[in-house]
Amino acid sequence: MMAAAASLAPAASSSLLRRPRSAARLLLLRLPGNPIAADANSRTIRPNHPPPPPQPFGRPPAVDLSADVLGSRWRRFCSAAVSADAEAREKVATTEAGEKVREFRKRLRIADVKGGPDEGMDRLGEVLVVRGWVRTCRVQSTVTFIEINDGSCLSNMQCVMSSDAEGYDQVESGFFTTGTSVLIEGTVVSSQGSKQKVELKVARLILIGKSDPSAYPIQKKRATREFLRTIAHLRPRTNTFGAVTRVRNALAYATHKFFQENGFVWISSPIITASDCEGAGEQFCVTTLISNAGESDCPLNSIPTTKEGNVDWSQDFFGKPAFLTVSGQLNAETYASALSDVYTFGPTFRAENSNTSRHLAEFWMIEPELAFADLNDDMACATAYLQYVVKYILENCKEDMDFFNMWIEKGIINRLKDVVEKDFIQLTYSDAVELLLKSKKKFEFPVKWGFDLQSEHERYITEIAFGGRPVIIRDYPKEIKAFYMRQNDDGKTVAAMDLLVPRVGELIGGSQREERLDYLESRLDELKLNKDSYWWYLDLRRFGSVPHAGFGLGFERLVQFATGVENIRDAIPFPRSPG
Amino acid sequence: MMAAAASLAPAASSSLLRRPRSAARLLLLRLPGNPIAADANSRTIRPNHPPPPPQPFGRPPAVDLSADVLGSRWRRFCSAAVSADAEAREKVATTEAGEKVREFRKRLRIADVKGGPDEGMDRLGEVLVVRGWVRTCRVQSTVTFIEINDGSCLSNMQCVMSSDAEGYDQVESGFFTTGTSVLIEGTVVSSQGSKQKVELKVARLILIGKSDPSAYPIQKKRATREFLRTIAHLRPRTNTFGAVTRVRNALAYATHKFFQENGFVWISSPIITASDCEGAGEQFCVTTLISNAGESDCPLNSIPTTKEGNVDWSQDFFGKPAFLTVSGQLNAETYASALSDVYTFGPTFRAENSNTSRHLAEFWMIEPELAFADLNDDMACATAYLQYVVKYILENCKEDMDFFNMWIEKGIINRLKDVVEKDFIQLTYSDAVELLLKSKKKFEFPVKWGFDLQSEHERYITEIAFGGRPVIIRDYPKEIKAFYMRQNDDGKTVAAMDLLVPRVGELIGGSQREERLDYLESRLDELKLNKDSYWWYLDLRRFGSVPHAGFGLGFERLVQFATGVENIRDAIPFPRSPG
Repeated sequence: MMAAAASLAPAASSSLLRRPRSAARLLLLRLPGNPIAADANSRTIRPNHPPPPPQPFGRPPAVDLSADVLGSRWRRFCSAAVSADAEAREKVATTEAGEKVREFRKRLRIADVKGGPDEGMDRLGEVLVVRGWVRTCRVQSTVTFIEINDGSCLSNMQCVMSSDAEGYDQVESGFFTTGTSVLIEGTVVSSQGSKQKVELKVARLILIGKSDPSAYPIQKKRATREFLRTIAHLRPRTNTFGAVTRVRNALAYATHKFFQENGFVWISSPIITASDCEGAGEQFCVTTLISNAGESDCPLNSIPTTKEGNVDWSQDFFGKPAFLTVSGQLNAETYASALSDVYTFGPTFRAENSNTSRHLAEFWMIEPELAFADLNDDMACATAYLQYVVKYILENCKEDMDFFNMWIEKGIINRLKDVVEKDFIQLTYSDAVELLLKSKKKFEFPVKWGFDLQSEHERYITEIAFGGRPVIIRDYPKEIKAFYMRQNDDGKTVAAMDLLVPRVGELIGGSQREERLDYLESRLDELKLNKDSYWWYLDLRRFGSVPHAGFGLGFERLVQFATGVENIRDAIPFPRSPG
Repeated sequence: MMAAAASLAPAASSSLLRRPRSAARLLLLRLPGNPIAADANSRTIRPNHPPPPPQPFGRPPAVDLSADVLGSRWRRFCSAAVSADAEAREKVATTEAGEKVREFRKRLRIADVKGGPDEGMDRLGEVLVVRGWVRTCRVQSTVTFIEINDGSCLSNMQCVMSSDAEGYDQVESGFFTTGTSVLIEGTVVSSQGSKQKVELKVARLILIGKSDPSAYPIQKKRATREFLRTIAHLRPRTNTFGAVTRVRNALAYATHKFFQENGFVWISSPIITASDCEGAGEQFCVTTLISNAGESDCPLNSIPTTKEGNVDWSQDFFGKPAFLTVSGQLNAETYASALSDVYTFGPTFRAENSNTSRHLAEFWMIEPELAFADLNDDMACATAYLQYVVKYILENCKEDMDFFNMWIEKGIINRLKDVVEKDFIQLTYSDAVELLLKSKKKFEFPVKWGFDLQSEHERYITEIAFGGRPVIIRDYPKEIKAFYMRQNDDGKTVAAMDLLVPRVGELIGGSQREERLDYLESRLDELKLNKDSYWWYLDLRRFGSVPHAGFGLGFERLVQFATGVENIRDAIPFPRSPG
């Protein structure tokens, strides 16, 4: 009677491989004596040779619902099933044993039920199978409430079970503790509770995987985020990390959508690299000279050396020192010089020994590069990008955003709406310095032309001077910016920009790149950088150079900004930091 | 007269920053005496304090086209311009100096002109500005043909120039050699050539960046791909690498679209890791113990050691040995155990010293993980995924695919259409061995149950036995597969699968994972793997374990498969391989 469902239980019996694959994926609906429905339902795949029995329709139905319960929806279901059945009968022409791989179906998720505009009311009366993990199980005298979460959304599916439902004996035995994985089959009914419009009236409950309550570290009581970082493999099961992961996913997808819709081409910039983009920031060395036997010791004298006693790079994997990239920008420039508009989205690394809530050793960067573009285009693109992705999550992650607004950062939704709706302001660095000097505010760090702006200055500008608007500061002194930034005609500043947002500070940094060969060469000389190691970068200025500009955005910084989580280590699935 | 255009020339004059930003982005169109048009056109941003002159409309027009040339289209343009103008006049309320950041506009690309269903015929009579790089310039007695490419598509824009056009003197001086960057303004007219439907009648040609023909390494003559690998920064300017990059981009985007549309959540798996997923494959060590001064020597005795003379990991950045990831699968499993369906798409690394056309030290992997799923779901998902992304490029990269079909691999389009249209076949490893043994074919490597299938066997199966269909082989002997694969009930095989495609061989490998704690622990013991280092992985089986399955796909292998390029180093922008 429980064939389809049992195929998902960990201790599945020997016939697992003959079991319906889509039991894991889809609606279960069977009527006795209806061969079409039974087959469409079970979607049998018969992987094993010899061929399957000719009549798969005889298997007993899983659910014995009477036809009148289902009404007209049943006919609709049948007509859909007919074509699936016809397909199943089609014999694949092969020379040997072998069967067709069946159609992939999207799994029915709790978000599919509760996430629509009707919050599930459009599915009243439907018989569904939900799979997920128990959040809570409250056994009351007449009825048991089980909250199931499957990670597709923040909401649980509330399942209401009376003592006559299949599997109730296990409920009584106390097996359904927090963290237990289950399969629940039931009918969508309107809920009497105020927290949801619909709930599931349970017909059948199956335990998939237990969760010993005395050992399971994630209990109802709220755990600290510091503790959760020590169990990174379990923390996505909490509300906060589930929500952060979904919003992070939405931000990533919106990033791709924005650039793709605007004709940008995604480039994977190299991770292992020889060059350091900015000549700044500590880099990680990548080597095969040091034994990779993680658990045993590595004697120093196993490392090959030259006659002079130096590490012999010629025996290393790449034949020379190699490092983890700190930025894909210079690589993106090479592609922008051929494909016009490109972007990178990949991991970058900094070996800075700073254990702060704003730094990671490994983080993802988004670096668009626009050809035939100047700093104004760059600022416009950064603004449009940020507004696009923020709008995307406000529209597509409503429930998660409400959660952040309630539990993580009160007012975050309004803060983000401001970003989408308000105009971004631009002003020059010189104007910004003047503005700060004229302000009555006492700053900790000095304000002086030529000094970099500190966080307190940036926050004053966005939060006070411009009343909560995002602000782009442009045209910084060249001494405090990187060598590749385009020199302005004043000879003192470069076409750089930093995008500042209230509360968070700098989110995006960008610049127009120096596309004039002579200017770039003299800047390298001034900074005593080795021109030879930039030969390929200079080539881009030798052959068909074009004005171009771009910016960089730390993706985890964006996740912090968009979710309100205070520590950047909570904005990435597996944070990497010193020690 | 050339204000807008000149702002893009490398040697822009001092007034650059007052120049129209959208010169870089959009159509240029100005009429004398029409202030609205002039302003909409120039989209002036005035970054410098003090405020701009109050009347920006007085600037001379860039193009002196008479109104009758433009006819009714002109009015349409004006009405669009009015709202832009209104927007520009709106004064941003700020407490201090500062201006609104302007709207971002998608750049007009050659693909936008020629890529539509009418191949540009819908734009006849429009005045456009195209920016790009000269592919060829043929000066004839009465007329000059210049082919411009901007990387947005394979096609060049053919520009036809007579001697009265602005900039013709520079053409005569021979400045417009291959690789030169240019701005061309002209009218779309129907082409008399057979290669394209429309061309640009040039009104104005501006040199942006020269390209010395005696030094530029990419000339009309076809360069070998080996040579082009030595100039990775310039090779995207060739037809082949431009096309590969665009198709690679389309495959990446289609990957995200497929998984997002099916409810999967993207997870960034960690790059720096302590654990080796399969206990196989050489790993790169990541360290800060070795000096990262790339250009100077690193004395061996600068590396800290323990009293015993071993490398002192406690002084390393992470306090212990760290490596580059070889797979994100185990990490993906932790998220699948919370969010149900997830996927990774990120770089992975192998330090194998194999200099073949099929291996890279650094490559991108796609690793979906499906919860509440068995091997049948996994196979169905892999099949649907592959068909989706291949269909996507056949529909969205027609021109590039025609190019590959013509120049890289004859027949590739039909090969890919087969993948989209034909049913995928599944058969067990045991059946595959039987099939090979029964075949009359003489193989180099022995066929015997328990031995891994070699490339020649796989190709026989897909190409001969199943006549060009993709084939999934499943249920392999456990001895030749990884520890985490789910043991089948026969005790001899595991629920693993390899997806094979004609000509290319294995493209995808996957499995159902062992979700039963006791089975997994005894497998680790059998293989003498250290259970303690898998404590977190075992936790997933201790707390709410669910049947789950996934697969891995080397993205560059997919790019090879989809473009026909023979060497995998030509399937990634910056290939990393030994030496």
